[in-house]
Amino acid sequence: MASPGSSFWSFGSEDGSGDPENPGTARAWCQVAQKFTGGIGNKLCALLYGDAEKPAESGGSEPPQATSQKAACACNQKPCSCPKADVNYAFLHATDLLPACDGERPTLAFLQDVMDILLQYVVKSFDRSTKVIDFHYPNELLQEYNWELADQPQNLEEILMHCQTTLKYAIKTGHPRYFNQLSTGLDMVGLAADWLTSTANTNMFTYEIAPVFVLLEYVTLKKMREIIGWPGGSGDGIFSPGGAISNMYAMLIARFKMFPEVKEKGMAAVPRLIAFTSEHSHFSLKKGAAALGIGTDSVILIKCDERGKMIPSDLERRIIEAKQKGFVPFLVSATAGTTVYGAFDPLLAVADICKKYKIWMHVDAAWGGGLLMSQKHKWKLSGVERANSVTWNPHKMMGVPLQCSALLVREEGLMQSCNQMHASYLFQQDKHYDLSYDTGDKALQCGRHVDVFKLWLMWRAKGTAGFEAHIDKCLELAEYLYNIIKNREGYEMVFDGKPQHTNVCFWYVPPSLRVLEDNEERMSRLSKVAPVIKARMMEYGTTMVSYQPLGDKVNFFRMVISNPAATHQDIDFLIEEIERLGQDL
Amino acid sequence: MASPGSSFWSFGSEDGSGDPENPGTARAWCQVAQKFTGGIGNKLCALLYGDAEKPAESGGSEPPQATSQKAACACNQKPCSCPKADVNYAFLHATDLLPACDGERPTLAFLQDVMDILLQYVVKSFDRSTKVIDFHYPNELLQEYNWELADQPQNLEEILMHCQTTLKYAIKTGHPRYFNQLSTGLDMVGLAADWLTSTANTNMFTYEIAPVFVLLEYVTLKKMREIIGWPGGSGDGIFSPGGAISNMYAMLIARFKMFPEVKEKGMAAVPRLIAFTSEHSHFSLKKGAAALGIGTDSVILIKCDERGKMIPSDLERRIIEAKQKGFVPFLVSATAGTTVYGAFDPLLAVADICKKYKIWMHVDAAWGGGLLMSQKHKWKLSGVERANSVTWNPHKMMGVPLQCSALLVREEGLMQSCNQMHASYLFQQDKHYDLSYDTGDKALQCGRHVDVFKLWLMWRAKGTAGFEAHIDKCLELAEYLYNIIKNREGYEMVFDGKPQHTNVCFWYVPPSLRVLEDNEERMSRLSKVAPVIKARMMEYGTTMVSYQPLGDKVNFFRMVISNPAATHQDIDFLIEEIERLGQDL
Repeated sequence: MASPGSSFWSFGSEDGSGDPENPGTARAWCQVAQKFTGGIGNKLCALLYGDAEKPAESGGSEPPQATSQKAACACNQKPCSCPKADVNYAFLHATDLLPACDGERPTLAFLQDVMDILLQYVVKSFDRSTKVIDFHYPNELLQEYNWELADQPQNLEEILMHCQTTLKYAIKTGHPRYFNQLSTGLDMVGLAADWLTSTANTNMFTYEIAPVFVLLEYVTLKKMREIIGWPGGSGDGIFSPGGAISNMYAMLIARFKMFPEVKEKGMAAVPRLIAFTSEHSHFSLKKGAAALGIGTDSVILIKCDERGKMIPSDLERRIIEAKQKGFVPFLVSATAGTTVYGAFDPLLAVADICKKYKIWMHVDAAWGGGLLMSQKHKWKLSGVERANSVTWNPHKMMGVPLQCSALLVREEGLMQSCNQMHASYLFQQDKHYDLSYDTGDKALQCGRHVDVFKLWLMWRAKGTAGFEAHIDKCLELAEYLYNIIKNREGYEMVFDGKPQHTNVCFWYVPPSLRVLEDNEERMSRLSKVAPVIKARMMEYGTTMVSYQPLGDKVNFFRMVISNPAATHQDIDFLIEEIERLGQDL
Repeated sequence: MASPGSSFWSFGSEDGSGDPENPGTARAWCQVAQKFTGGIGNKLCALLYGDAEKPAESGGSEPPQATSQKAACACNQKPCSCPKADVNYAFLHATDLLPACDGERPTLAFLQDVMDILLQYVVKSFDRSTKVIDFHYPNELLQEYNWELADQPQNLEEILMHCQTTLKYAIKTGHPRYFNQLSTGLDMVGLAADWLTSTANTNMFTYEIAPVFVLLEYVTLKKMREIIGWPGGSGDGIFSPGGAISNMYAMLIARFKMFPEVKEKGMAAVPRLIAFTSEHSHFSLKKGAAALGIGTDSVILIKCDERGKMIPSDLERRIIEAKQKGFVPFLVSATAGTTVYGAFDPLLAVADICKKYKIWMHVDAAWGGGLLMSQKHKWKLSGVERANSVTWNPHKMMGVPLQCSALLVREEGLMQSCNQMHASYLFQQDKHYDLSYDTGDKALQCGRHVDVFKLWLMWRAKGTAGFEAHIDKCLELAEYLYNIIKNREGYEMVFDGKPQHTNVCFWYVPPSLRVLEDNEERMSRLSKVAPVIKARMMEYGTTMVSYQPLGDKVNFFRMVISNPAATHQDIDFLIEEIERLGQDL
């Protein structure tokens, strides 16, 4: 058990007690010792502070006693992540924790120490003076540590060290200068909710074992449908394991709606089905088509304009073409917020075409859905209310911890008919409560992780207004970046005009390339710039931003901002850093 | 900021300070107040302890000061889950937390208070004197609380209350008497690892953003393949969102192996494919077939013997029959540990048949895979080493927190060829590290939750030996239950003989039914017994066990034991409870 006052915010006496006879010396040595890797440092510290003297009773029946005169540790880091000095984890194992007899006190101490490690990581995550990543190549990490799994248990001291090591090499996804993915940031209420979800450790398939979570899913999906604009929030939906699966659901349900016999008879019983999506859409549409037995050849990619938006006339042309070949167009997936350009397809025009040809309209708003929370920006999704289904990932623009993706469906009951198998061991029909709350049979999954609680709790804590403020701020930051670089020497925009989402796509052209003519050699050299700058960013650990080629455009930076910690200064920093790391190329 | 000594294990002075002038009275009133629902209790307490006097500065720029003379709370529960008295959460909002300027101290206090709520729940979970569930019907819960989402934010006091309320109505899945699902128990190291996973908040698709987790997945899947018995642990695999998806992967890969053109051309380009699985197998095989465009009619259910094991001769007969019709058998899914009976299909015989007819052999060992860790029980899966793919859910028998399901594939590279789409924004080919560690393109998902860390850390903490001890103990408990009830008055076994897994299936026959002849009326009355007992169990909250009908067998109890907290006394309790709740039926 930890001593009173040993939690992370109370730090014992100023001089760093520990070795009562010689506190200064012990602390100084301990600080030196901490520089060793592989846990040697902690072992040395434990020795210096003299807390390795006596083993716990076998089976943990006698938890360690509090020694209230002894401080927890003498390291300089507050909150401190050193194992508590008065619990000797070197002699404790998992078997000493609950449900072990008398396991309560060692369990509380152990979990509190894990928590202190996590809290320290959280605080560091937001500290601009720490690295975004302490990057090591795979072979380095594999050689530096022994990660192998063995027959015999390790003690809890080693377990705590593994937690520290794992976090040492982790990406700080909450760091104000982490811009690498569409999902960035670390929301404190969302994090707390995710910890609670882990602690509740249950499964979404029945009300019986997840009563509150099932109700919260119901409430939250309904609210999301209201925001989409479906009357009274009616309809259906589910939280699925990511946007790719949500898009696959949409395709699955659209197919079932048109040809319900496909469930029993398979694709052999139906004509050739064709799906349409833009050439800038997410690869998950093709992945889903491959999985569902539709085939990637049956996904027609519609041309985009120079801003990455689907061209409606090309969509209509390709639909007519497919019909003329005797194929059956069954799904159009429009994108609201493309992955690279952040483009919004013209949903109203797409809706008109879908209506005209009686095709299921899906909107992949995995990235752009968040803008529905903003009065200022929601017009970019005008027409989404006419969709038959919508993918919307709160884990992207809304900053909910991973993962949290919703598939919303306008017609109620369709998901259930499409997927249900009536397993009698789960969905007994003679239960004593209203069975409409057993939602598991509408899923492709059997067990399903609780992804709703973090979104629900964040929504309560921020309000719709809080999400709106976050989104408006991120878009303002993107515009700030755009305004700085659009006319700055050494930058070229990948497409013209103000970004519609937070995606800002640009080339950084180092001085040596600025003098070259716009020919193949220049392109070839330019294509190597972003990868080198990115590699250097990761080696310095100062910031992270993504790059990629697209069509005939060579590697360019795709800056995206969803991180609530980012400020104007971080945008300035990014530009300076790109120039610092790229000027010699 | 919480005061020194205010964490969960230090409780201020013995007399329960708080109101310094009248501590005893305040505490007594507070205890009474805590009986109110809807957070009124906490508000009254806050009032009684006088901590609602002054608002924080706007924007949280001045975090609340420590008042070290004031104890955290005066409630009787230790660890206590009352909001800390010296942080007035009523005036703090999510916007006061990190990354807010000066947000560090309120953040640490808030997260610590959430943690105290969680720790209290953890301790209660293992306490036999607490209820497994405080059951309320859906309409009751919907009426009792306002769960709706609003425009405006709530303060952190309300957020903390939501955490408490959510856990109040949660199932204690770690409770020693919770037997309702295949996944039970709450492992402390697994829980700690899941908290860390939430805090790291990243995504498995690239090494770049999940370096350690990608390596741990590599190490762990290799170890699992070694245990399966594939030479050198070679092969492939992935952690997927549950056993149903793992089984769907197997079907997808088996189809691709036989007809790679299906990826582009769809099912139209291939002959009619037939999958075979037993009539006792999991419903996810049919669900997968429906999704993949194969159709449920193309899943042939093979007869089982009276113990629920697939009959190999019937399998061979149905394969021949399918071939005679011109269909193409492409997959046999044998089950190692069926959901209801816990039966193990005869894998060696199945392997011989698959070899003879050149059919992909999948083993759904979602439930039974854990037995591979036991020298005593692994013979039940003899032949699994001959499978082409295996589903194995460590979140079931191995007690890893939800969710953690692995799909293991013998042939390396097949998953990648089957699923890859080469998205250039994620899987850039000119990155500076070894790209074989970017494993995302072999998944159906794009973003993928980190499910490996909890398994890896538990494995380090328990060793293979620890998992073995857990599994042997659970099987011993199942045998103990079987031995008690097999000859006990009022019990009938659903199938004869010692259970092979921990599934013990039985009817409890109330006294009034024991005198009846074995006819339709008795069956009809017997079918109502288990649902009523189960409903009563939930209303009392004393224990939970599942029931279902199967084929021509009316509702029976399916007892399963995967809970590390369960003891012989809990088995005794279950029997007594069934009899107490069912004797009047």
